[in-house]
Amino acid sequence: MMEKKCRELNCQTLELQVYLNDLPGNDFNTLFKGLSSKVVGKKCEEVSCYVMGVPGSFHGRLFPRNSLHLIHSYYSVHWLNQKAPKGLTSREGLALNKGKIYISKTSPPIVREAYLSQFHEDFTMFLNARSQEVVPNGCMVLILRGRLSSDPSDMESCFTWELLAIAIAELVSQGLIDEDKLDTFNVPSYFPSLEEVKDIVERDGSFTINHMEGFELDSL
Amino acid sequence: MMEKKCRELNCQTLELQVYLNDLPGNDFNTLFKGLSSKVVGKKCEEVSCYVMGVPGSFHGRLFPRNSLHLIHSYYSVHWLNQKAPKGLTSREGLALNKGKIYISKTSPPIVREAYLSQFHEDFTMFLNARSQEVVPNGCMVLILRGRLSSDPSDMESCFTWELLAIAIAELVSQGLIDEDKLDTFNVPSYFPSLEEVKDIVERDGSFTINHMEGFELDSL
Repeated sequence: MMEKKCRELNCQTLELQVYLNDLPGNDFNTLFKGLSSKVVGKKCEEVSCYVMGVPGSFHGRLFPRNSLHLIHSYYSVHWLNQKAPKGLTSREGLALNKGKIYISKTSPPIVREAYLSQFHEDFTMFLNARSQEVVPNGCMVLILRGRLSSDPSDMESCFTWELLAIAIAELVSQGLIDEDKLDTFNVPSYFPSLEEVKDIVERDGSFTINHMEGFELDSL
Repeated sequence: MMEKKCRELNCQTLELQVYLNDLPGNDFNTLFKGLSSKVVGKKCEEVSCYVMGVPGSFHGRLFPRNSLHLIHSYYSVHWLNQKAPKGLTSREGLALNKGKIYISKTSPPIVREAYLSQFHEDFTMFLNARSQEVVPNGCMVLILRGRLSSDPSDMESCFTWELLAIAIAELVSQGLIDEDKLDTFNVPSYFPSLEEVKDIVERDGSFTINHMEGFELDSL
């Protein structure tokens, strides 16, 4: 396909510029060393590939306007921008998701509302930033962790966090961790349903969905 | 000036994309952490500045064709691409710059020829790569270490290396370093004269010199 495009554009080699984004605190050095012998500035068959690192949060702007043809985010946008969703403490400062670290069957309804609301806010920021950076007729391929069930407290998406909450509660009971730390900690991640993602994309309006599907990963 | 350009282009904020290049083995992590609180994706007055890291050797291609408006290289292109200039051993494999690590008053003429020839080759590679990457009417600002004297063995450019060669020779005399290591080591750097730089740029032909000057740095 690349070679065909090359001939269409009447150029000897097709050139790709690839930006790899992560937070500034992550390890770009190892990434760059691993890349250097393979693809940095090297020709791969008929394609020259130029790879760069972009430090910053994908919840904000990372690139100039109209500069990206294809955006791909893999297994990332289910992470929230905030350390934890807003609204998980009462007016009196009391934890509303006591003994749990994510949406749980026993969590009050306000917990699932706070998570969805925060995901809505953060995912909209992501869409807004990318919509300014993508060229007209550019496209985006997103893969994120979600759920097939409409119930956000379904074990499908909560199983890991339920287990972790039980483990932390055990450490609390042994006096190794303050109870308050467990009560106020909430995982900064939300696993949306397909309908929730669709709803946010449509409300935001800057992208149109061409194709959308849910798939299950094989268990380890 | 930025604000004026903004008004001319009728855009609310001017956006700059800045690429920082270094070899893949260098420390981009510290660079990115230092930048993150200041300029990454942040507005600086009326200018949004997007900073990226580009790992690779500037002696080869680093960017797609026609993608850079302004290229700046500071204190770098006097470094050679090779570990040492080619041609500094005889056919029999004997070192031709014995006891020295750079061009010296006592070095045979072939040493200065080998250095100039290697610089010519490497600087031409640099110019060739950048000329493909720069947009038409783009420009380049180069600052490199050179010399004012026409004589490459003048103390102006050799002083540091002469001192270092004496220090290494002392270690050799104490048996701490093999003599062969001193004899075969040559600094992979060349400090050209203005005339040499001008000659190489003109022979290469891909850039035109608008302005060129030599200046002395204050001594420490």
